Amino acid sequence: MTALDVMRFVEPEVIARRTNSRGVKLDPSGLIERGRRPPAGPVLHGLAGRSIAEHGDLSRPEVIELCRLASLMEANDVAIHHPLDGKVVITAFFEASTRTRLSFESAVLRLDGKVLSVPDGRTTGTAKGESLSDIGEMFNSYGDLVVMRHPETEAAQELTDGLDLPFINAGNGSGEHPTQALVDWFALLKWRPELADPTVDPERRIHLGIIGTPGNMRAVKSFLLRSIDFAPAIRKLTVISEMADPFGAGLNDPERLDFEVEITNEMAPVLPELDVIYMNSIALLGDSYQLLGEQYRLHAQSTLKPSAVIMHPLARRDELDTSLDETQHNLYFAQAAGATYLRQALLSAILQRLDRLPFVEGA
Amino acid sequence: MTALDVMRFVEPEVIARRTNSRGVKLDPSGLIERGRRPPAGPVLHGLAGRSIAEHGDLSRPEVIELCRLASLMEANDVAIHHPLDGKVVITAFFEASTRTRLSFESAVLRLDGKVLSVPDGRTTGTAKGESLSDIGEMFNSYGDLVVMRHPETEAAQELTDGLDLPFINAGNGSGEHPTQALVDWFALLKWRPELADPTVDPERRIHLGIIGTPGNMRAVKSFLLRSIDFAPAIRKLTVISEMADPFGAGLNDPERLDFEVEITNEMAPVLPELDVIYMNSIALLGDSYQLLGEQYRLHAQSTLKPSAVIMHPLARRDELDTSLDETQHNLYFAQAAGATYLRQALLSAILQRLDRLPFVEGA
Amino acid sequence: MTALDVMRFVEPEVIARRTNSRGVKLDPSGLIERGRRPPAGPVLHGLAGRSIAEHGDLSRPEVIELCRLASLMEANDVAIHHPLDGKVVITAFFEASTRTRLSFESAVLRLDGKVLSVPDGRTTGTAKGESLSDIGEMFNSYGDLVVMRHPETEAAQELTDGLDLPFINAGNGSGEHPTQALVDWFALLKWRPELADPTVDPERRIHLGIIGTPGNMRAVKSFLLRSIDFAPAIRKLTVISEMADPFGAGLNDPERLDFEVEITNEMAPVLPELDVIYMNSIALLGDSYQLLGEQYRLHAQSTLKPSAVIMHPLARRDELDTSLDETQHNLYFAQAAGATYLRQALLSAILQRLDRLPFVEGA
Repeated sequence: MTALDVMRFVEPEVIARRTNSRGVKLDPSGLIERGRRPPAGPVLHGLAGRSIAEHGDLSRPEVIELCRLASLMEANDVAIHHPLDGKVVITAFFEASTRTRLSFESAVLRLDGKVLSVPDGRTTGTAKGESLSDIGEMFNSYGDLVVMRHPETEAAQELTDGLDLPFINAGNGSGEHPTQALVDWFALLKWRPELADPTVDPERRIHLGIIGTPGNMRAVKSFLLRSIDFAPAIRKLTVISEMADPFGAGLNDPERLDFEVEITNEMAPVLPELDVIYMNSIALLGDSYQLLGEQYRLHAQSTLKPSAVIMHPLARRDELDTSLDETQHNLYFAQAAGATYLRQALLSAILQRLDRLPFVEGA
Repeated sequence: MTALDVMRFVEPEVIARRTNSRGVKLDPSGLIERGRRPPAGPVLHGLAGRSIAEHGDLSRPEVIELCRLASLMEANDVAIHHPLDGKVVITAFFEASTRTRLSFESAVLRLDGKVLSVPDGRTTGTAKGESLSDIGEMFNSYGDLVVMRHPETEAAQELTDGLDLPFINAGNGSGEHPTQALVDWFALLKWRPELADPTVDPERRIHLGIIGTPGNMRAVKSFLLRSIDFAPAIRKLTVISEMADPFGAGLNDPERLDFEVEITNEMAPVLPELDVIYMNSIALLGDSYQLLGEQYRLHAQSTLKPSAVIMHPLARRDELDTSLDETQHNLYFAQAAGATYLRQALLSAILQRLDRLPFVEGA
Repeated sequence: MTALDVMRFVEPEVIARRTNSRGVKLDPSGLIERGRRPPAGPVLHGLAGRSIAEHGDLSRPEVIELCRLASLMEANDVAIHHPLDGKVVITAFFEASTRTRLSFESAVLRLDGKVLSVPDGRTTGTAKGESLSDIGEMFNSYGDLVVMRHPETEAAQELTDGLDLPFINAGNGSGEHPTQALVDWFALLKWRPELADPTVDPERRIHLGIIGTPGNMRAVKSFLLRSIDFAPAIRKLTVISEMADPFGAGLNDPERLDFEVEITNEMAPVLPELDVIYMNSIALLGDSYQLLGEQYRLHAQSTLKPSAVIMHPLARRDELDTSLDETQHNLYFAQAAGATYLRQALLSAILQRLDRLPFVEGA
């Protein structure tokens, strides 16, 4: 199958219908074409039955091929292939999160799978003391894959102690949120497909800014860890944080970061230099949450580079002003809009239903 | 397609199976035959992609054709046509309401659509400050249509600010509940199909009584506003309320009511004259709820006209005594039983799947 | 159809995939073969449209044939037959129970039915006073079968006052939990298929121990009541309880028990004699719950007969130590793993879709 064949599966009217109405519009066909071949079957087939608990559970080639498959999911009506027919996905949200839960559930339903939903932890019966390991053992009989969010970092490990099914971590305390990082890079690769290349023209390498604290913001941490895979595309990373050690215990070796790193608590001087700004609202401090400080707010009057784009995993608070929504700095709506397609790609691969999709090589 | 053809789609055993066991039984075939033609495709096709936020979003011909289509939904097993295959409906109930939520969800599932459910507002994550506009933007990627109930009146507008999908208002504070009014008139038109005629025999015109306060009871308000479409069928309206101005700010021009209107706070004198009595339990007063006063209770010993029927959107409290359940005054069970069929008709039209139904003219 | 034909439907790789990873592994083929014929169509067809509110709603032959059908559900991929296509099952959990709710919902989804879910009683709207009878009347229009759990014993009767649909009681206060007892006996009959025989070799009859109080533990009560059907297989029953009258008002005539009964509050002397030990965590005392006393804990060092098996409806607390999980005393994981298959069998029979299954006699 050639690049030309792949392009047969890009339906422009499907893309147009699905494009977010405000901010940057991302066309998935650039990423599809970039590869000059369909998503690689051998790489994607290797995901069968696997769990995604942390960033290390996926390699750079897997991330790129998943993003290319997600692009094809976005450019097509895949529902007609019923890829997840007969499969049951359990979405266990012991910490409520409408946005992430509905994103996964929408991905399952769009592929004609079934959803068993635990929308919040308060519906877990009178025997409050049940262990996550026992819950994992229970899930073995009820479904084919488990997506879990939990307020405690250790929860992912405890559940998988009893679980034989593939597991996707949808956020564990101050741990990780690895599929959010996939969603983030899916947006960046659609925005500039050349960022996926092994060598990137120095002119096109990005200065990445992170407003927040990777050490206690799991989405920020996962984005940063995933970014290591794309070091050839990153000229410099600037972390803007109130904390003296924003990397925290979870990232104790910034040497791992294969690009220039700068840490600052002043946003103003560095803001006009950034190509991509990643921010988040909420940091976990012990058992409670803290919002981003007032000095780190962005709005339409912020001194941004004209071509700069802003990313945010959402939901947002005041740190990201709605005055940016109509501007071309707004990549966050396109980023959010890609989430279900990325998750469709991941679920199809893990649940071994790639063979139902007409656009995977060797499937 | 002729009236005879339409009648081919009326399956008496389906109707019998679906009829409520107590109170008035309503046969949908009367309304189907009344039109002497199948539901009008051109009128119903015009609903494609539309939102139903308030009563003005539907015209009288649209209401009548929707009720006729709903009658055919009720008289047939439509599941075999899988009308909503591949469609995802988001039911976002920020104010919990099992009855209305399950009614919409049952309608979707009966048509083989998928449901993404937000059963109550407490499962909306830690970022409690997320705006409804951002939630609307999120829903754009997750489904094909949104049904929302919310405790605040302004919520419908706020959500649709960010939403590109068709929207159905399932109750917004003291605002409206437009599909409840459709359900109400669906019951009345099955009960007396001639009420749909442009001119109604004066003998058959009804004296309508409303027990409650349209100004702060959204179901009552929506019923009243919808009733304006059926002015030729209404001889007189009597509003029975403790409030001096039961119409309130939302209905500040009773002149719009194209029939004789009487307002009273005494139920006893007028009760024996009423043909149809519409009542509700609960009024919104500021942020709290108030139950209907004790003097407005109905029971089997109430001095009702023998042919009078009682309607109630349910759930009920003491104002509607169970001693009425076994009587022929009980239209409320038949009214409730029609809700899913009416919503099936509406969803099929908005989501443009009328062509999958064998009984829509020109579809 | 002969036993050989039935065995065609046993797919060893399906069984292997579904077997719990720790504890006793149960092979469903023994129970299938035992009957020397496929599950009896006439017996199972007799369940069409029936309700299962208490143990008396099922006879011994029905229980055995349901367990044999469940074995075939377990030994096959039945999803390809779409047995519940177009059917809507309402799961109304007014008392939250993730385990039981998901078990029923998984059973429905595996058979391609639809689920309308009420995950907990707090989402039932502002009209808190709505009667269960009215809720039953509402459900008539929304689905094809209702599964309900409720914290009050009278709730099952109140709901069915208004309900015309088949009803399955998933636990009512200190009343019963009849499908849990089916799940329990399904495990026992897979463990030793000869227990289903009308006469059992005296050597193979079991000494059954119950740790807990049938009078205020509904799962224990239901298991005990169901065990009466299998009296020929039971040599002796020992009830180990702190209570002087563990049978309580719900079981006021232990004479009904057609086997030797012993009551004791000391576990140590009797433990080494028991073949099967059934235990539960939680007893209902008035409106509150009480955990099992510390003296009744089991762990890997307990003086159990080497061949003894432990059953528990789960969730567990400290009374059942995880040190037993890896031992051959652990029947409770296999017991739990069978729950969805048993419920699949029951739902297929009640909803009259046995004809879609290739392995029911005369279907």
